[in-house]
Amino acid sequence: MTEHKPAVTVIGLGAMGSALASTLVAAGHPTTVWNRTPRTVEGATAAASVADAIAASPLTLVCVAGADVAEDLLAGAGDLTGRTIVNFTTTTTASTSAAGERVGAQGGTYIDGAILAVPPAIGTETALLFVSGGAPAALETLGTVMEVADASLWDLALLSGMYGMVGGALQAFALVRAAGGTATELSGLLASFVAEMAGDLPGMAERVEAGEHPTASPLAMQAAGVKLTDVAREYGVRADLMAPIEALIAEGVAAGHGDEDLSALVELLREPVAA
Amino acid sequence: MTEHKPAVTVIGLGAMGSALASTLVAAGHPTTVWNRTPRTVEGATAAASVADAIAASPLTLVCVAGADVAEDLLAGAGDLTGRTIVNFTTTTTASTSAAGERVGAQGGTYIDGAILAVPPAIGTETALLFVSGGAPAALETLGTVMEVADASLWDLALLSGMYGMVGGALQAFALVRAAGGTATELSGLLASFVAEMAGDLPGMAERVEAGEHPTASPLAMQAAGVKLTDVAREYGVRADLMAPIEALIAEGVAAGHGDEDLSALVELLREPVAA
Repeated sequence: MTEHKPAVTVIGLGAMGSALASTLVAAGHPTTVWNRTPRTVEGATAAASVADAIAASPLTLVCVAGADVAEDLLAGAGDLTGRTIVNFTTTTTASTSAAGERVGAQGGTYIDGAILAVPPAIGTETALLFVSGGAPAALETLGTVMEVADASLWDLALLSGMYGMVGGALQAFALVRAAGGTATELSGLLASFVAEMAGDLPGMAERVEAGEHPTASPLAMQAAGVKLTDVAREYGVRADLMAPIEALIAEGVAAGHGDEDLSALVELLREPVAA
Repeated sequence: MTEHKPAVTVIGLGAMGSALASTLVAAGHPTTVWNRTPRTVEGATAAASVADAIAASPLTLVCVAGADVAEDLLAGAGDLTGRTIVNFTTTTTASTSAAGERVGAQGGTYIDGAILAVPPAIGTETALLFVSGGAPAALETLGTVMEVADASLWDLALLSGMYGMVGGALQAFALVRAAGGTATELSGLLASFVAEMAGDLPGMAERVEAGEHPTASPLAMQAAGVKLTDVAREYGVRADLMAPIEALIAEGVAAGHGDEDLSALVELLREPVAA
């Protein structure tokens, strides 16, 4: 093992936790692990309890299934003085705040984290690790570390973007197949078209922040000309993935944004504040 | 004017039709135009009727607001012997078939077309022109011409992909703004992340066609860990753009695809055939 690498503990050995632990081991970090059902990772030391696991390293990464699981484990960990806990469990922001208060009350330092990667990408730069707060150096071993204001939120915002894109692609594949074609004949063009359109997202963001939405493709024209749900029904493809964006465009036109860009729709997504 | 460029007629001078006509004029094609309300394009000849307009050129491009409008105009055009009509009006496939039969019955050649571009992009290679059938050479002036089996369907399939992506991005921007951030701080990362994920669409298409969906990110894990609607509600952002894909993933898990990739969901989008 390489000297001078700080010890790290990983709690939770699902697919992601195991990838974190084995990558730390491979990089020469003395690594301690704990999992609810006894399990270990080659080269790591399995601790007998959560408290023992956290005591073994100044830095502990938590990666379990659900915010409440993470909170229960940390609640049982006792004194956390001098310990830093990075919680990579996918959570909403409210639950990560609760975990943070708990860790603070037990004397530890809490850092909200989020990992945007599939487990096999851990240890490569394509894995994005978001942390809210000073990033422990050991995390650099695991991927590209980004310090952001709200790690869990950024993760879920980016995932929202990805799932929207994937939903659109699934619909596109289903349409072409329903018409007797194949997903593969469309996929290259679809990939390059979506990637090119994604290049306008910074421009869209600027329009959102400026509150001005000039466009060559006004919402009224889109509402009149683009029949995403009609074509789906015509081919016997479910329209539910496309219905909400089509409805939102119509809503935008009705609300007076007919001569504006799609970027104008961001404002409509805010829930009215309850009186 | 350059010699030897064939004459072209454009019917419909909305934003797109005007862009087509002015690009043809600029490239030296003798260009005839017709619009329901009298209008013209600099350098083009305005015809007095649809029949006169179509008679003026061997090739006519139709670009009006709605399939029924296109069909009505063509029905009134009389004899179309020796004429080729490319219908760029955004239509569903059923309505373009009806227009095709009508043109054929009047002695003309009908080509279903679709334009995937904003009007200012016409005349550049980023404008995609889909045609089902032999593409008249004059179209090369207008953008990148692609011959596909079903132009209207490919257009709407690609648009489905784009609107899915845009819907996800709108949601991402709304989330970050609801948390006190700005769309611009997220947009660069969002754009590159979405573009990178789009790079997997050809792989996803291959899994669809193979009917095998191995993955490092199984649906069951996604269903358990990704809370797109929860985080939206927590921040007071509408969840309607994200609810259908989240529901579809849960449906996929319930249908036994829990250990498979998102690509497995394409099959679920086919409507069951009525008994």
